[in-house]
Amino acid sequence: MYATKITLDESEIPEAWYNIQADFPNPMPPPLHPGTHEPVGPQDLAPLFPMALIEQEVSQERWIDIPDEVRSLLALWRPSPLYRARRLEKALGTPARIYYKWEGVSPSGSHKTNTAVAQAYYNKQEGIKRIATETGAGQWGTALSFACGQFDLECQVYMVRVSYDQKPYRKAVMELYGGKVLPSPSDQTETGRSILAADPDSPGSLGIAISEAIEDALSREDTHYALGSVLNHVLLHQTVIGLEAEKQLQKAGEALPDVVVGCFGGGSNFAGFAFPFLRHRYHHDKDEIRIVACEPASCPTLTKGEYRYDFGDTAGMTPLMPMHTLGHNFVPAPVHAGGLRYHGAAPLVSHVLNSGHMQAKAYQQLECFEAGVQFARTEGIVPAPEATHVIKGAVDEALRCKETGDEEVIAFNLCGHGHFDMAAYAAYFAGNLQGHEFTRQMLDENLKALEGLPSMAG
Amino acid sequence: MYATKITLDESEIPEAWYNIQADFPNPMPPPLHPGTHEPVGPQDLAPLFPMALIEQEVSQERWIDIPDEVRSLLALWRPSPLYRARRLEKALGTPARIYYKWEGVSPSGSHKTNTAVAQAYYNKQEGIKRIATETGAGQWGTALSFACGQFDLECQVYMVRVSYDQKPYRKAVMELYGGKVLPSPSDQTETGRSILAADPDSPGSLGIAISEAIEDALSREDTHYALGSVLNHVLLHQTVIGLEAEKQLQKAGEALPDVVVGCFGGGSNFAGFAFPFLRHRYHHDKDEIRIVACEPASCPTLTKGEYRYDFGDTAGMTPLMPMHTLGHNFVPAPVHAGGLRYHGAAPLVSHVLNSGHMQAKAYQQLECFEAGVQFARTEGIVPAPEATHVIKGAVDEALRCKETGDEEVIAFNLCGHGHFDMAAYAAYFAGNLQGHEFTRQMLDENLKALEGLPSMAG
Repeated sequence: MYATKITLDESEIPEAWYNIQADFPNPMPPPLHPGTHEPVGPQDLAPLFPMALIEQEVSQERWIDIPDEVRSLLALWRPSPLYRARRLEKALGTPARIYYKWEGVSPSGSHKTNTAVAQAYYNKQEGIKRIATETGAGQWGTALSFACGQFDLECQVYMVRVSYDQKPYRKAVMELYGGKVLPSPSDQTETGRSILAADPDSPGSLGIAISEAIEDALSREDTHYALGSVLNHVLLHQTVIGLEAEKQLQKAGEALPDVVVGCFGGGSNFAGFAFPFLRHRYHHDKDEIRIVACEPASCPTLTKGEYRYDFGDTAGMTPLMPMHTLGHNFVPAPVHAGGLRYHGAAPLVSHVLNSGHMQAKAYQQLECFEAGVQFARTEGIVPAPEATHVIKGAVDEALRCKETGDEEVIAFNLCGHGHFDMAAYAAYFAGNLQGHEFTRQMLDENLKALEGLPSMAG
Repeated sequence: MYATKITLDESEIPEAWYNIQADFPNPMPPPLHPGTHEPVGPQDLAPLFPMALIEQEVSQERWIDIPDEVRSLLALWRPSPLYRARRLEKALGTPARIYYKWEGVSPSGSHKTNTAVAQAYYNKQEGIKRIATETGAGQWGTALSFACGQFDLECQVYMVRVSYDQKPYRKAVMELYGGKVLPSPSDQTETGRSILAADPDSPGSLGIAISEAIEDALSREDTHYALGSVLNHVLLHQTVIGLEAEKQLQKAGEALPDVVVGCFGGGSNFAGFAFPFLRHRYHHDKDEIRIVACEPASCPTLTKGEYRYDFGDTAGMTPLMPMHTLGHNFVPAPVHAGGLRYHGAAPLVSHVLNSGHMQAKAYQQLECFEAGVQFARTEGIVPAPEATHVIKGAVDEALRCKETGDEEVIAFNLCGHGHFDMAAYAAYFAGNLQGHEFTRQMLDENLKALEGLPSMAG
């Protein structure tokens, strides 16, 4: 009637994930073992991940069935609604039709729960009792805490110390869902103890927390490790977002969108929404479909990073991955979009960008918050600071259409709510937010740490 | 397929509100003018409310059309989902089938937005430019800030000082939606200034904030007042909740529920869910339908209050209303369910309770939080402290069914999320929450302030 909110029945939750690797004209470079620099094999990853996920990591099948137990859990919040942003369109005066997928309805308040329940399921199937992970902003730790609870698994979260101290409510949510939360660096691992010995007041970092979680997982037979973004299987699990959106756009009477926008941190919410649309570009259903990733100017992985092998963590414990990177030692400025502060880009997205099938833009947090406030006042949803980047990107596209008069269809993924980030909005209104530059000199310095690592040509 | 989440299309948003007054066998006692003690007429209320709402306040029509502009705004989040609580049922081992309506999907995170958009609409229609209101916990102020923004109205919120200081993030949400927030007592009203003169550090109270908002509205031609609960028109606007739930239960293949449960503060979320089901009891579609209100033991308006005339605010500026009351001077213990800390009960609900068509139960906050944690871990939703009361009530009903083996259908209204209440959960996990007694002696002392007020028979 109003065509404001397009819902689907739970029977329309996708039955299979879409694996973009099946559609790549050229295969991706393989990840390499950190010690030998040889391609990693399944046996290298088995101490950390269940075999089902390792198989998904390398699968070339286009569709991978979603287990019924996972779908039944997704039904707690999926299919998520797709909105026509009629009130935002009106405020902008654009002839474009703007649609957004709303992932904030999940238990953790973001898209992260989509992969958390799948990862917990496969670990449970393999007899694992406990999962260790890291969290920065807290969204991933929340999602995995919830998912582990559903499968009666213990969840150990290493939370970056500065977040642990600044965001006690995020910790409270994880504990509410049954997760166990330690500030990182902790005294529970060698890595943590050695860092604390050197600096008892270390604020921690995502890189340190990853290293602690991996060490924890490697030290116990009953424990695996889980990552909330970057890896192929994580991006795969997020494709339910785009697949649902495709159905919903059809239901709204639209053809394929002209522009697809996502915010970009590690890459999983972006890929989960964009890859199903990208497949229509690969299949020539619509060649001119435009895919845009929006990242923070303070951490411009896609727009300023180099495409080369680098580690996923600071300590160099992960495999070497082919990715756009600012260097694994890079510590991004403390912007409020904590979920976008990652030095690298998912290998799958890096490969797509390198092949010219998508674009990337970088935005300052001030202009993003401005767009976020306009969005909240028109559409009624409080976006997470991360999500304000995609709003800014979509608004830019809509204003371009206003200038040209083009009635394009713009679709974007609103990855989560900002209910636990109101301190950021309060700082914005108080005029206490600032922009952050990223210079060529910073990149050159960061990349020094990568000397000696194998080059992409191999 | 899984029958976990029952959704409706936006075309199924109810087209009319249900007015329970049309079905009362005996009419309610009228509200009385605070000065003359005569029944109030429309002209007494006109300085505060638009005539359309005053007419709804006294209407005897069973169905009142929802304006299309209001429905189109409700479509931003309505119809809200109805869930079958399969995971909670399993954890309890009950043969009962438990359904809950989820109102946390609204812009303010609670049911309050349902009436906020209607009230803002009617005020706009009457040419009003500005609305003044009070807020305690912050949910109502958030809802009205959002709604006013949609109609280009200014929104002035008087926020109880202690909440203003303790909940800066609630204030930030209101400002994000464009609301203006002042701590109450403020220096903007006579009431506020006189209280500050006596006590510059006054923590404020809901009663004081109501008095300030009413004074503000009376002092300006362009300004009206708005209340978030208690009044007949507010309860009317909330009936979309129960009307949708009725359709959704049908869609799930259920007949009318055996038990309907709601948490109880002023009465609007309870009535919005329960009244449409109560109508089937009045119409003898199902005589044995059981309606249960769950209130905090620290503020037991329905279970321990007296049914008599009392003021809605502390200062005695409102009409005298026929209601179950603990006395308008009563200051409830500082439980975390701030939205349930009100001395009186909505006249409509009081009338229903007095006529024997519903029941009430009182619960301590500790047992409510315990139920809330179980709910979060099974169903994945973080309930507001207010909402944990209805969860406790529903769990009790389900455990009764477990004992008797009855396969009853239990339906309840989950009125909002607890994302801004994590301090309460943190306090619960730290063992810092306590119970609060309410004694006969406290009641007797509170009711002394009512001496000289007209009696119900009068």
